[in-house]
Parts: sequence; C-alpha cells; structure tokens
Amino acid sequence: MSSSEDKNGPLHWKTAITKIEPNEIRLRGYRVDELMGRVSFTRAVYLALRGELPGEAVGKLLDAILVSSLDHGATPPSALAAIQAASTGAPLNAALASGILAINRHHGGAVEDCMKTIREGLRHVREDLSIERAGAAIVSEARAAKKRLAGFGHRLHAQDPRTDRLFALAQEAGVAAEPIALLRSMEKALAESRGGDPLPINVDGAIAGVLVGLGFGEEMANLFFILGRVAGMAAHIDEEWSRQRPMRRIHPTDHAYDGPADRSLEQGA
Amino acid sequence: MSSSEDKNGPLHWKTAITKIEPNEIRLRGYRVDELMGRVSFTRAVYLALRGELPGEAVGKLLDAILVSSLDHGATPPSALAAIQAASTGAPLNAALASGILAINRHHGGAVEDCMKTIREGLRHVREDLSIERAGAAIVSEARAAKKRLAGFGHRLHAQDPRTDRLFALAQEAGVAAEPIALLRSMEKALAESRGGDPLPINVDGAIAGVLVGLGFGEEMANLFFILGRVAGMAAHIDEEWSRQRPMRRIHPTDHAYDGPADRSLEQGA
Amino acid sequence: MSSSEDKNGPLHWKTAITKIEPNEIRLRGYRVDELMGRVSFTRAVYLALRGELPGEAVGKLLDAILVSSLDHGATPPSALAAIQAASTGAPLNAALASGILAINRHHGGAVEDCMKTIREGLRHVREDLSIERAGAAIVSEARAAKKRLAGFGHRLHAQDPRTDRLFALAQEAGVAAEPIALLRSMEKALAESRGGDPLPINVDGAIAGVLVGLGFGEEMANLFFILGRVAGMAAHIDEEWSRQRPMRRIHPTDHAYDGPADRSLEQGA
Amino acid sequence: MSSSEDKNGPLHWKTAITKIEPNEIRLRGYRVDELMGRVSFTRAVYLALRGELPGEAVGKLLDAILVSSLDHGATPPSALAAIQAASTGAPLNAALASGILAINRHHGGAVEDCMKTIREGLRHVREDLSIERAGAAIVSEARAAKKRLAGFGHRLHAQDPRTDRLFALAQEAGVAAEPIALLRSMEKALAESRGGDPLPINVDGAIAGVLVGLGFGEEMANLFFILGRVAGMAAHIDEEWSRQRPMRRIHPTDHAYDGPADRSLEQGA
Repeated sequence: MSSSEDKNGPLHWKTAITKIEPNEIRLRGYRVDELMGRVSFTRAVYLALRGELPGEAVGKLLDAILVSSLDHGATPPSALAAIQAASTGAPLNAALASGILAINRHHGGAVEDCMKTIREGLRHVREDLSIERAGAAIVSEARAAKKRLAGFGHRLHAQDPRTDRLFALAQEAGVAAEPIALLRSMEKALAESRGGDPLPINVDGAIAGVLVGLGFGEEMANLFFILGRVAGMAAHIDEEWSRQRPMRRIHPTDHAYDGPADRSLEQGA
Repeated sequence: MSSSEDKNGPLHWKTAITKIEPNEIRLRGYRVDELMGRVSFTRAVYLALRGELPGEAVGKLLDAILVSSLDHGATPPSALAAIQAASTGAPLNAALASGILAINRHHGGAVEDCMKTIREGLRHVREDLSIERAGAAIVSEARAAKKRLAGFGHRLHAQDPRTDRLFALAQEAGVAAEPIALLRSMEKALAESRGGDPLPINVDGAIAGVLVGLGFGEEMANLFFILGRVAGMAAHIDEEWSRQRPMRRIHPTDHAYDGPADRSLEQGA
Repeated sequence: MSSSEDKNGPLHWKTAITKIEPNEIRLRGYRVDELMGRVSFTRAVYLALRGELPGEAVGKLLDAILVSSLDHGATPPSALAAIQAASTGAPLNAALASGILAINRHHGGAVEDCMKTIREGLRHVREDLSIERAGAAIVSEARAAKKRLAGFGHRLHAQDPRTDRLFALAQEAGVAAEPIALLRSMEKALAESRGGDPLPINVDGAIAGVLVGLGFGEEMANLFFILGRVAGMAAHIDEEWSRQRPMRRIHPTDHAYDGPADRSLEQGA
Repeated sequence: MSSSEDKNGPLHWKTAITKIEPNEIRLRGYRVDELMGRVSFTRAVYLALRGELPGEAVGKLLDAILVSSLDHGATPPSALAAIQAASTGAPLNAALASGILAINRHHGGAVEDCMKTIREGLRHVREDLSIERAGAAIVSEARAAKKRLAGFGHRLHAQDPRTDRLFALAQEAGVAAEPIALLRSMEKALAESRGGDPLPINVDGAIAGVLVGLGFGEEMANLFFILGRVAGMAAHIDEEWSRQRPMRRIHPTDHAYDGPADRSLEQGA
C-alpha cells in the first residue's frame, strides 16, 4: 500500500501483532492455522499480548484465572446490565458491550488497585525490607490514610475458595512466589491490625498477585476478568432470551438457582 | 432472600447457570475451584452456555475457533474502533466495548447467515435430498434470488488456511461431518455455477459448519468471534498505548507489520 | 490534504455536513458562530440532519418531541442501565452509552415500526382509498396477521397526555395533517375491532406521525428519543452519584418520587 | 408498589426527577405536556439536571453551547467511530454509543480540566487575590509544573470564532462574568509568558467558563458536548448510510466538503 500523509506529516504506522498476507495470517510470527489445535486459546491470548508463547503451566494458570472470572451469578452489575439490554431486544454484541461498560472501579477494579499495591510492596522489598516488614508497612500506611486495601475481604465469601486454588496452580507453574508471599504477609498484618479478625485475600487479590508475577502491566489488569465475564454474560443473555419474556422487570437479588444439582468432576464428567 | 413483587406480580425469577453460596460458587453444578486448573477456559465456556462439560476433543475444536478468531491485523473495523477509542484516552473496558459495537452484519455477521443456510440445507437433506443435491439446490436458489451466499470467498485469502485446519480438527473430534459435507457440496456447486471459478469456504463458513454440528443456536453465532476478538483488540489497545501518541490520525490501511519474524512451533517453542 | 489511496483504489471521500477551515466552521453552509444565539439547538439539529433550517414552528414542534422524550422516571431499562453503570464507577460517557444500548426494539422501537405502518397506510391513500378506509384496512390486516400495531396503547397511560399536545403543536405548525388523520382513523378502527374498548395513540405513535409528516426516514426514527433520553439519563446519573452509595442493589420498581411538589408554568416560572 | 428488601436491608429508594402516575408525567413538578411547546428542549434539560427552570437568556446560552458542540466535521475520533460502526451495519443506537465511547480525556475532556482550573483560580480570588493576579498565578504554577493548561489554543483555529460569541451571549444573560474575566486574565498571562505569542481561549475553555458561572459541577462537564455531538454523529451516520457502500476503508483526514455553499442567516433563511 502506498504511503499516505496529511498536512501533519506521514500517516504510515507500524504494528507488531499480526501479519496478513494472501492465504497467510501470522500472529506474532506463528501461522494461525499452525496454532489452531496445537495451542489453547489462553496461550494464544498470552502470545498476542506479550509476543511469546507461554509454557503449558502458565497457560493452565491463565486458564484458571479465566475460569475463576467466568461468572458469579446474576447479581453483579455487569450480568444485570447484559440481561437488561438483552431483555429490550439488543443484539448479542450490544448486550455484551452494555455489560462490559458496567465493569469499573467498584466492580472488577480491585485487581488493578491491588497490582499497584503489590508493586509498591515489592519496591519496599528491593529497598531492603523483608517481605514480612513490607507487608506490615503497607497495611499500616493504609490504616494511617484510612484507605481500604483492594484485594482483601468479600461481601459473601469469608474464605474465597478460588484464592487457594489459584495460588496452588501458581506454585505448580513456579511463578509469582514473591507477590503471593507479600499478599500473605499483608493478610497476616491486616488480621493483626484488626485484633485477630481476618480479612482474607479474595479472588481479585489472588489474580493481582499472579498477574504481577507473570509481568503483566496494570493497564491490562481487567482484561482477564472482562474476557471471562464476556462468556458468562453470554450465558445469561442466552438464558434471558430462552426463558423470559421481553421487557420484564429484573429484580437484582430476588432470584434463585434451578440448574443442575451439585456434582463433581470425580463422578466422571 | 424474601420474595418480592410489584403491581404486575411477583418479580422472583430463576437462573440455571451459577449457584452462589458463602464460600461456594458452582457453575452448572461444578465447584468453580474444582474446575480451575482441571478444565480449560474454553471447555468452561461451553459448560456455561450448554450446561454440560464437553470432551477434550470438542474443547480443542472450540479452542481452534477462538484462536482463528483472535486477530486479523489492524484493518478490520473492530480493531480500528478499539484503537481509536484507546487513542482518545478511553479505559480498557470502553475501548473494548467500542470495538465490539463495530462487529455487525457486515463484519462478523457471516457466521450467523451461513448457519441459517446450513440448517436450511440440512432440512432439504431430511426431506430426502442427497447432500450433493441439497448443496446444489441452495446454490441455485441463491443465484435465482441474486443473493450472495455467506461463508464463501474472501477479499484477500483465495484459499483461507483456517478452513482446512478447522475441518481436520472437527473430523478428529468426530463432529459436524454432515454440515461440512454440505458446505463442500455447496462449494462445488458454486464453482460450477461460476464456470469453474472457485469461491472457497472461508473461515466464517467453516466456523458456521462446526457450530451447527455442535448444536449451537444462531443467536450465539457471533459469541466465539467476539470472544476471540476481545483478546485481539486488547493487544491492539495495549500496543496503541505503548507505541503511539494520543489523538493521532489512524490510517485504516497504510500500516506495516514490524513484529517477530516468521517462525514455527516445530522450531521448538 | 493530499489524496490517498490503497490497493482497492482511492480513499478520498466527501461529506456535506460541516466545512472546517482555520477560524471558520460552517454547518451546512452557515457559520456556527452566527448560528449560536440565533438558532435553537433543536433547529440546528434539523439543519445538520436535513441540510436546511426549519422555521420556528417546526423547531418548536421538534422541541416538544425532545421534551416529551426526555424522561419517564427510573423504571425504563435505559434509565436503569445508566444508573447501574454509574453505580459501578463508570464515567459519564460510558454510563450514557450503556443506557443507549438498552434502547432497542422493545424499548423505543415502536416509533420506527409505527412510521412504517403510516407510510404503508399513506400508500393505500395514494392508491385511491380514503383515509378512513386506509386506516381500517391496516387494522384489519394487522388483526388477520395477529400482529400488534405499534404506537397504540400504553401499559400505564390510558390516555397519554403527550399525544394531544404534540398533535396540537403539529397543527399550529401546519405539518403532518395527513399522517395524524390516518392515525386517528386507525385508532377509531382499532376501538371498533375491540368492541368499543379504545387503544389510544401513545406518544410513540404521535412522534411517528409527526416525523413522517416532516419527511424523516425510519432509520432516524429513534434519534429524537435517544437525544431526549441522553439528557434524562444524565440527570439520573448525576442523582445516583450525589444521593447513593456505590454498588447498591437497584430495585427496578420499588422507588418513590421525592422531588418538587406539583406546580404549573402559570404560577410564574 | 410494595416495599422490598433483601438480606442487606430494604431496597426501596427515592428519586427527585420525574413523577409518573396514570396519565400524568411530571418533570421536577411540571406536567411534561405543559412543558411541551412552551419550554425549549434546552431549558427542559436544565430543569431535569438542576431542578428549576432557567430563564430565557440562560436557555439561549445553553442552546449556544449545544450548537457550538454539534459538529466539527469528520475528523474527530467520535465522528470517525460512529461512521465506522455505521459502516459495519450497526443500528443507530450502537453507532452513537461507539462514538460516545471515543469522547474521553484527549477528546472533549478539556472542559472538565478547565472547569477545575477556573474553580481553583476563583478560590485564589476569594483568598484576596485580584483576578489579574489569580490568572497570573495559575499560569506560572502551570509553567513551573510543565503542565499544559486545558482550554487554551487550538490545533486549527488561531482565533476560535465560537469563544467570543459565547462570551457575548453570557454577558447578555448576565452570567459568568467572573469566570470569564479570570479566563481573560489567564489568556493575557499566557501570552506574556510566551513572549507575546498568544494562545487564545478555545471553545472548551469558553464552555468551561460558562458552566462554572451557571453552577454546574465538573462531573457533568462533558454532558453538553456529548449531547450536541450525538446530533452531529447522527448526521454523519445518516450520510454514511445514504452515500457510502458498507465496509469501506475510512480515511481519517482525506475527505472534502461538498455541501451547501457559504451562506448567512442575513440572506433570509
């Protein structure tokens, strides 16, 4: 294509993500048709974002983050927004966009805030504090500033079951040991500062720790949450269209689960 | 929670997707923390949408659809919209929403149209036509109505490399044999109707065939494309923020690839 | 600016809306700074869309459409979506976009459908039916097809107060006499077909009649509703931020009005 | 409607904007059908946002802000985003939402930043500085911090024609004298600090001054810009659909105006 310009100068620009040629599409150098069937979507996402393929263990860890983010029922504002748009007759893309627009500071934003806190704590560690003392310093600074620490405590889950699982997978993958140790030291200092009343690491904090360990920047903090929730919101949209009449009044909490009974992968799925 | 009502009657409603209880989140009956690390994101997406876990081969096939949809460079309108919003200072969620809103009838919509055509063709087959004659009938009906058949031909790729790969994986998984045979018969009839000038099945047609084979409804046709592209758009947004100045003029085609050189998984990634 | 091209040909294009030159901005030929203070926003909107300035009476009529569309309380899905996004911390533009995405077929879409019906009825009139018989024909066709006619009846307002007011203003402006007469004949035929039980023209039907009379196309049917509601949604967003805590559960109907008491312009506003 | 609750307490809430009863809709106490035809849209917008009807002169001033914001041709990112979504087949609401999502810090955000600066300057004035010295103080603080002052200078317009017009209308309405005097003193100090090279108040700065004078909060700074641009974007979307083929490549700057020739209201529109 010929080089273009306008009066502010040349408009030609570069991109390092995908090369398109007739009959050949290459993502970060790899033929897409070669990646198909040999690399999971999640590993390909990492490749697109970071430029290199991650190993299987890191792929599995990111898969776990996406699975943990997929859905949290019909009460979160993003699910309600998607359901509501679907109920008015929005097409799938608009209903998903409406839901994504409800993912902000107060819903999903904790990952980004917690990543910043962890990075600050790790700077303390570089400046010769132990992990224990760095965690304690962050907690006491937050208390002095009367700031709530993102990534700890949950309205509903006193012990978020996703946290331990994610940390176990990170250990298997051999990543994020330091950020996780820092989070644990913050959790300990938090409980002490509250007279022994714990405020455990929630799933946002756990994801933040893993993403820092994997070297992601804060500006992509919410991507995995959004990507996971796009799938979850699609399931809610589909259910809205198949089970409900258009333009119903959608109660934000007065709904009950009537899906499959409790079951386990062990029972042979 | 207490049952609610307004003057139109009770507002209480049911959802069959996710059960939330203190310290326990179950997606279609399975504990999310059990799924994490044992089930890929893609298989969990299928579980959320359809209610049951698919086998590994179907998971791999859906992974391939998502990988094939991930990115097609910086010229598609969805990528340009996401880049443009990012350039004005939009946060990640708004830039992604802007890109998703550019996925419509003329961009991504071919999967849905092709799924409808395939379903119509399969009805012909049920009504006692052979697959060859059903494919030929659809092609001649479209020609008579001067309608372009969605899922065939590509502006750039005379032979879309993603099509054969997807069909090979479908065969491995043992699904979608009939829709794919029908697409092949349509492709043959199309070439004949054009005096031997082929108009091969493109990736939209290939995805349509596989989704019909897997039993997805047309209303979810675009989900996999959107889900894949959310990741691709995020890579473009991240690149925009790191490489470009805000508010630049974004040329839709005058850009070149400057990423990693051609490489292959065989070289040992 | 130099002319550009890519391999598909020249990219140069034309637009007839606004001419931008240093220190001079002209909308459809008029200097924007000349329009400011001399032409209402609503007349300028018409100028932007249609290319010519409307008279004062048409401006006043469009103003009335926008005022009638501005708000309908906190129950419509668009208001709820905007409030909900605002509650999660969305910036103003994203909260408005989320609300706009909830304006679809089942919410706001009646104007477009009713415009189509009116145009069809006016074709009947051209083909030599009286307005009474054209209205009756449309009603009996709809009944035969068991189709609900858009623009008639309202969940809450047995007699929509906005309808008569809009029709009176249209009469003052000397426009839309024929579409309004047709709507009245449909209303009469509808009541007869229901054994005397009326289903009066609602505000959507009234707006549709006026827009047809003014020569607007159906593709812009929803613009005035959306434009009006953007302002109404902004008021709800502002109220959410100033009166409510973030992330509250938003009940769709259990809310009450606590604003200014009933008053009238006559009392000297 | 019966009062509702969930386990976090009652869900009942209040809104002071619109009261809806059968056959009666009241905006801030006034019947909407009474407002229709007697109050301009713009005055009704102020009523919705602020709770009281403004006088005619303030209505005219806000009209001028909306007219000044309506359109700035096809190069701004919001126009390009709306056009692009329209080109892919997006419905009107989604194309508008896509455009609104491109209105952010770097495009439209200057009004908010400038409002903050003006408020800070007025605090200096309250603390016993003259307006001249308050303006000079802000300019020298910004220079010391190497911060660009929002609301001054324009890429294209050395003398933005909308600024003087808006200030004249504000004077007619008898509002915003102090914020405007402060802006003028900042403009003077800026020019001096640049060795006599002026950086005049642009339209964003002018709007900021008027909105501060009218008592609007920064959180609604962008509303008038967005409201105006929704109309302008709709004109571009309509033009795209009527003049262009779907999925064209949209050059961001290589387009020319081919609309009505230069004309004036004086010529008798």
